[in-house]
Amino acid sequence: MKFSFYNPTTIQFGQGQIASISTLIEKDKKVLVLYGGGSIKKNGVYDQVEQALDGYTWETFGGVEPNPTRETLDKAVEQMRTSGLDFILAVGGGSVIDGAKYVAAAACYDGDGWDILIGKHTVTKALPIGAVLTLPATGSESNCASVVSNKATLQKLPFMAPSVFPKFAVLDPDVVKSLPEKQVVNGVVDAFVHVCEQYLTFPQNAPVQDGYAETLLRTLVDLGNTIEQKDDVWRANLMWTANQALNGLIGSGVAQDWATHMIGHELTALYGVDHARSLAIVQPALLKVQLDAKKAKLEQMGQKVFGLAPSETLALDTIDAIAAFYNGLNVSTSLTEHNESKEEAIEAVISQLEKNKMVALGESQAITPEVSRSILDLAVAG
Amino acid sequence: MKFSFYNPTTIQFGQGQIASISTLIEKDKKVLVLYGGGSIKKNGVYDQVEQALDGYTWETFGGVEPNPTRETLDKAVEQMRTSGLDFILAVGGGSVIDGAKYVAAAACYDGDGWDILIGKHTVTKALPIGAVLTLPATGSESNCASVVSNKATLQKLPFMAPSVFPKFAVLDPDVVKSLPEKQVVNGVVDAFVHVCEQYLTFPQNAPVQDGYAETLLRTLVDLGNTIEQKDDVWRANLMWTANQALNGLIGSGVAQDWATHMIGHELTALYGVDHARSLAIVQPALLKVQLDAKKAKLEQMGQKVFGLAPSETLALDTIDAIAAFYNGLNVSTSLTEHNESKEEAIEAVISQLEKNKMVALGESQAITPEVSRSILDLAVAG
Repeated sequence: MKFSFYNPTTIQFGQGQIASISTLIEKDKKVLVLYGGGSIKKNGVYDQVEQALDGYTWETFGGVEPNPTRETLDKAVEQMRTSGLDFILAVGGGSVIDGAKYVAAAACYDGDGWDILIGKHTVTKALPIGAVLTLPATGSESNCASVVSNKATLQKLPFMAPSVFPKFAVLDPDVVKSLPEKQVVNGVVDAFVHVCEQYLTFPQNAPVQDGYAETLLRTLVDLGNTIEQKDDVWRANLMWTANQALNGLIGSGVAQDWATHMIGHELTALYGVDHARSLAIVQPALLKVQLDAKKAKLEQMGQKVFGLAPSETLALDTIDAIAAFYNGLNVSTSLTEHNESKEEAIEAVISQLEKNKMVALGESQAITPEVSRSILDLAVAG
Repeated sequence: MKFSFYNPTTIQFGQGQIASISTLIEKDKKVLVLYGGGSIKKNGVYDQVEQALDGYTWETFGGVEPNPTRETLDKAVEQMRTSGLDFILAVGGGSVIDGAKYVAAAACYDGDGWDILIGKHTVTKALPIGAVLTLPATGSESNCASVVSNKATLQKLPFMAPSVFPKFAVLDPDVVKSLPEKQVVNGVVDAFVHVCEQYLTFPQNAPVQDGYAETLLRTLVDLGNTIEQKDDVWRANLMWTANQALNGLIGSGVAQDWATHMIGHELTALYGVDHARSLAIVQPALLKVQLDAKKAKLEQMGQKVFGLAPSETLALDTIDAIAAFYNGLNVSTSLTEHNESKEEAIEAVISQLEKNKMVALGESQAITPEVSRSILDLAVAG
């Protein structure tokens, strides 16, 4: 257990907190408000942001897509340079916030922004970012990771850099009120898998990290099971749980997996599968293929999260409980629900994984392209 | 649930991490190394700090006492001014780190440093602080609170200010190896009470905070019960748990009590009772006196932390389990173990509480001096 933990993001949590951004951005900053498809103009968030930015110099850039592309984001970089803007306020979900991190870093780099994703440029400098979260799911609002897609090359790649931690993140649970059910469900599943990626590895004598992770998983299961009755308390707990799922804390000092994410990313890049839904397809199959390596932790999860009794089949029962949890939210765990030709899809994913050097995934680098193929084969059944 | 959470301290966790301070303090800083009674010169910590500071301009100030006094700390402030120092490296436990926060703030204030404690001066500026923790207990290494005593007036008072958050905290579990058993035990009890102060209030639909707090409490009970067998993993878990107990996270957005601390502080200020031991005297009695208000949460704690079965007497059984936990560590829960004349001691504490305006304590401001008197009366028996 040797690690460094750093998370400087100020969390402004609660109803009405959007107004507080005027106390968090210096008055002389010139702000780019980055947003997505425009739902913020219908649900009142944009109006609140506009009010809070009264007195600032600011411009907007809309149209950041789910799984933000460098093609779109490079236009925002251009706008920042042309207008001399020096602060990015991301108003949206994980895609907009991930996009803001790319824009913040690319604006401080003279070369091709995509260099950041392929490891040709290491980010040490970025413009300051603030976030108004509109979709609890990714935790991007208080971490320093970003995933960006490239339409031209059909790639979806991550980067991390301490300089892109948002200075602040506003978490107002009221934003959940206007979200379509599907997006709320995606948020629950996404956060659940984030916790699993940092928890379902092997036992490590880390009772604090384990207990925190189990707390988040139990809370997400409870939220999923009561999704019909969502009220102020439900929304607040989802907002906070999704944030805690990926702010770096529960992953500090323990092994992490992330193979589900890397394989899932290819399904999204190739076929546009929703991020959360790509994870639900890959994860149960991956856990079955990795059963031996993950048995002890799956058994622990079965007891602590799902309240299962010890038995010979506990590890497998836990995987079934995870799949049943997703299915209960109408999230499919089967690859064929998304693709007509499964053989073709599997070959395409394997080929992309190799191209992106995702050839030794998981906490023990045991997931080679061949293992990924077994996982995808198994994921066909779901 | 409306709150702001901010904790910018970088945690450097693990064996050998003291060496990393050279990467965390800017090279042009002039450093005051603040320390306590000199144990760091015997256990190798001082040597590691000296090595890490090679190339820096630095001086030392030793002799910060347990429950640091403004009388001593003002001399460190004077030394910083005289020598033109601009960074404080606190090498010690909670007392040294609390002391560093006072020095950092007082050095930026022209008036009497004690003004900070009595609320006459609000701290908005402080010199930067780093911490090398030598005693896991208080969590002071990654929070912005400080408690300072005044020998002349027999006062022990707290202050909080975001500007005194340490920039970094080194948590090397090896420092626990050379600690006397009594100090390790104090650390376990101190951390346990810190969690309780933020957890044992009333139910608030905050499953994440509750689950995190219960994780820390269970871990501390396990650590206490295995104190004889302490090894690398044991030490690492104590170090991390004590840190998590008071870094602001589990108290975010929930009611907090702190009456045990405020009453305990007077026992320390008047009679020199160890901080942790003052808490063990006050807390069980306080919980009994506040039984109605805290019943639901005590019952939850009994089940989740001590594994007790539901029953009519569960809340009281939980208080007994807490007291038994302390007693099992040879920590007394009785006031009379520390004072010959209990009536006199109780009157003196009540009088100090009134003088320090500690007259409406607890999560509901229900603990008046009269209630404090009932608590202390009950604490005589232990």
